[in-house]
Amino acid sequence: MLFYGHYDVQPVDPLDLWHTPPFEPTIKEVDGAKRVYARGSSDDKGQLLTFVEACRAWKESTGGLPCRVTILFEGEEESGSPSLEPFLESFAEELRADIALVCDTNMWDAETPAITTSLRGMASEEVIIHAANRDLHSGYYGGAAQNPIHILTKILADMHDETGRVTLDDFYDGVEEVPDDIRKNWDSLGFNSSEFLGAIGLSLSSGEANRSVLEQTWSRPTAEVNGINGGYTGEGFKTVIAAQASAKVSFRLVGTQDPEKVAKAFRKHVEDRLPEDCRATFIPHGRNPATQLDYNLPELKKAARALSDEWEKPTAIIGGGGSIPIVGNFKRQLGMDSLLIGFALADDAIHSPNEKYELKSFQKGIRSWARVLQALAQ
Amino acid sequence: MLFYGHYDVQPVDPLDLWHTPPFEPTIKEVDGAKRVYARGSSDDKGQLLTFVEACRAWKESTGGLPCRVTILFEGEEESGSPSLEPFLESFAEELRADIALVCDTNMWDAETPAITTSLRGMASEEVIIHAANRDLHSGYYGGAAQNPIHILTKILADMHDETGRVTLDDFYDGVEEVPDDIRKNWDSLGFNSSEFLGAIGLSLSSGEANRSVLEQTWSRPTAEVNGINGGYTGEGFKTVIAAQASAKVSFRLVGTQDPEKVAKAFRKHVEDRLPEDCRATFIPHGRNPATQLDYNLPELKKAARALSDEWEKPTAIIGGGGSIPIVGNFKRQLGMDSLLIGFALADDAIHSPNEKYELKSFQKGIRSWARVLQALAQ
Repeated sequence: MLFYGHYDVQPVDPLDLWHTPPFEPTIKEVDGAKRVYARGSSDDKGQLLTFVEACRAWKESTGGLPCRVTILFEGEEESGSPSLEPFLESFAEELRADIALVCDTNMWDAETPAITTSLRGMASEEVIIHAANRDLHSGYYGGAAQNPIHILTKILADMHDETGRVTLDDFYDGVEEVPDDIRKNWDSLGFNSSEFLGAIGLSLSSGEANRSVLEQTWSRPTAEVNGINGGYTGEGFKTVIAAQASAKVSFRLVGTQDPEKVAKAFRKHVEDRLPEDCRATFIPHGRNPATQLDYNLPELKKAARALSDEWEKPTAIIGGGGSIPIVGNFKRQLGMDSLLIGFALADDAIHSPNEKYELKSFQKGIRSWARVLQALAQ
Repeated sequence: MLFYGHYDVQPVDPLDLWHTPPFEPTIKEVDGAKRVYARGSSDDKGQLLTFVEACRAWKESTGGLPCRVTILFEGEEESGSPSLEPFLESFAEELRADIALVCDTNMWDAETPAITTSLRGMASEEVIIHAANRDLHSGYYGGAAQNPIHILTKILADMHDETGRVTLDDFYDGVEEVPDDIRKNWDSLGFNSSEFLGAIGLSLSSGEANRSVLEQTWSRPTAEVNGINGGYTGEGFKTVIAAQASAKVSFRLVGTQDPEKVAKAFRKHVEDRLPEDCRATFIPHGRNPATQLDYNLPELKKAARALSDEWEKPTAIIGGGGSIPIVGNFKRQLGMDSLLIGFALADDAIHSPNEKYELKSFQKGIRSWARVLQALAQ
């Protein structure tokens, strides 16, 4: 097995919001539960140590490990992992294993262990619509001159139909329905969408009709405008017709959707809607495919059972809405699947002041890994 | 008659682009024609003086003026005329006349005199769409959470139908077709829409189908997005779902369109398209109705004939796409129509470095006013 974790952390600022020194782990009891407060306690030093301690326990008790284990600790994860790809390339032989174990994810809740089996990929693109060769006075030209903001808003509004589906050509190629047993596992999690949305001031899910919030954020792709800009946006008012307008658009991908194909379909969607006089320029940003573990992988079932035994609750087989790039690198560069198992909680305040890790996460996390190692070695 | 002009000017900066000192009028010959270079030479000191000199000439030649003339010079026109309305209010009796003469507009071209008989009005409004109570991570929430940029682009895209008409309720109430004789006058002007649009890098007019560019910019109302902003708009990319998105929208108005009614219809257009979870806030900006001179006004015909006699060309009866607020004040506060007669040219570079006024505009402008005064006095 190859174990992965990272020991680098985000900056601590704002330092004055910390209640304890960020680099002196401090145990405090809150509501009857002990917590370790420190930068990295949860993301990802604390999590990484759960595996180290599990190995130490195996060695102390039995004199060795139940299978061959390679450990890879990264120190550049929070900086975009610039050296990772060449490193994996150079040490492919040493690193390749039957499966990777990645400890950088959450439990489902404080009682329920989880394995994250899918992560959405992404294609992101900036588009700039160009019309007149300079900003125009809307009194003199208004009514006759192309307004690139009008063109852009039409293009973006056309990206979704009335049911919330994305209208790009062949967008859903490679998107599969969630298997029935996984859907049942999701239904059993007791996810409360009203609470999830209520916490951010919303009450209803938007997006694709007739899809649960878990589907919408885990197993369905999206088209999202992350930024839009054009014309005069300062204080007051200026009756200008802008020469150009731009938007940053990203697509969260699932299954085997091809990021490059999606980006191309977006460019075609734009070009198809451009009036003769206008042109569009594009700036490509991220491109990475989704990760989808085979739900029938024997290692997944073994690890899930081991976690259930430790936490005395069925393991949640969950999805993730964002990306963990290392998983894609392991798959593409080394041909390895990854089991994403972690003991962090949603309220750990990672990347924020007073980051914490539950002592229970740490202690039961160690025991969990001890069990997972044994299960996978069998 | 009440004559109006303004003697205040825009700032001169950037000063280093001026070829002559901006406040020392300098006569230079360019392509065989003499020009006065100075800040305000065209807008509006030079224009204002054409009337003063015409009056002086009348007095020197005949010992008096052909009718009673009141002159109103403003010194705050370039600063939004904060004192104008109370001033007109206080001196209404002294200022009221049969007609106002306003010298702050252009000739049709260097050979063709013009009277501007319509000016578009305006209603402008800022709209802010609010969704979640904070910016969201698009991996975690994307697909389920409302994106206010999506809502805004849909709202704005819906403001025009496929023929370029504005879709707001009752938007075209008060919009009238141009009378046949005026349309003939426009057709005779030899306006070249390809040149007009070519100068700004466009070749085709957008906007309402089956309308000429002159109609589109003089006699038809518009809905224009002057600015749009939301989410991350800096360098690079941020996969954020914004908490809010905003746009600045203005409507150019014609005929008797009611600015307040149009602003209300826009607010309704927005509210009708808001999902349950979202709300919109509005910031009202300008509100001023269009100006439309009665094309059958006897003074208009007399003045047009006087200008034709001086310039030996038929006077163009034109529209203006922008606003000159004083005209609305004269109408609303003093019940007076205004004849907009000016001798500026499109290339005078008003508000820019090296502003100029053609000596021909100045000299024939003076003679023009002498003739107009006589014609109107009859």
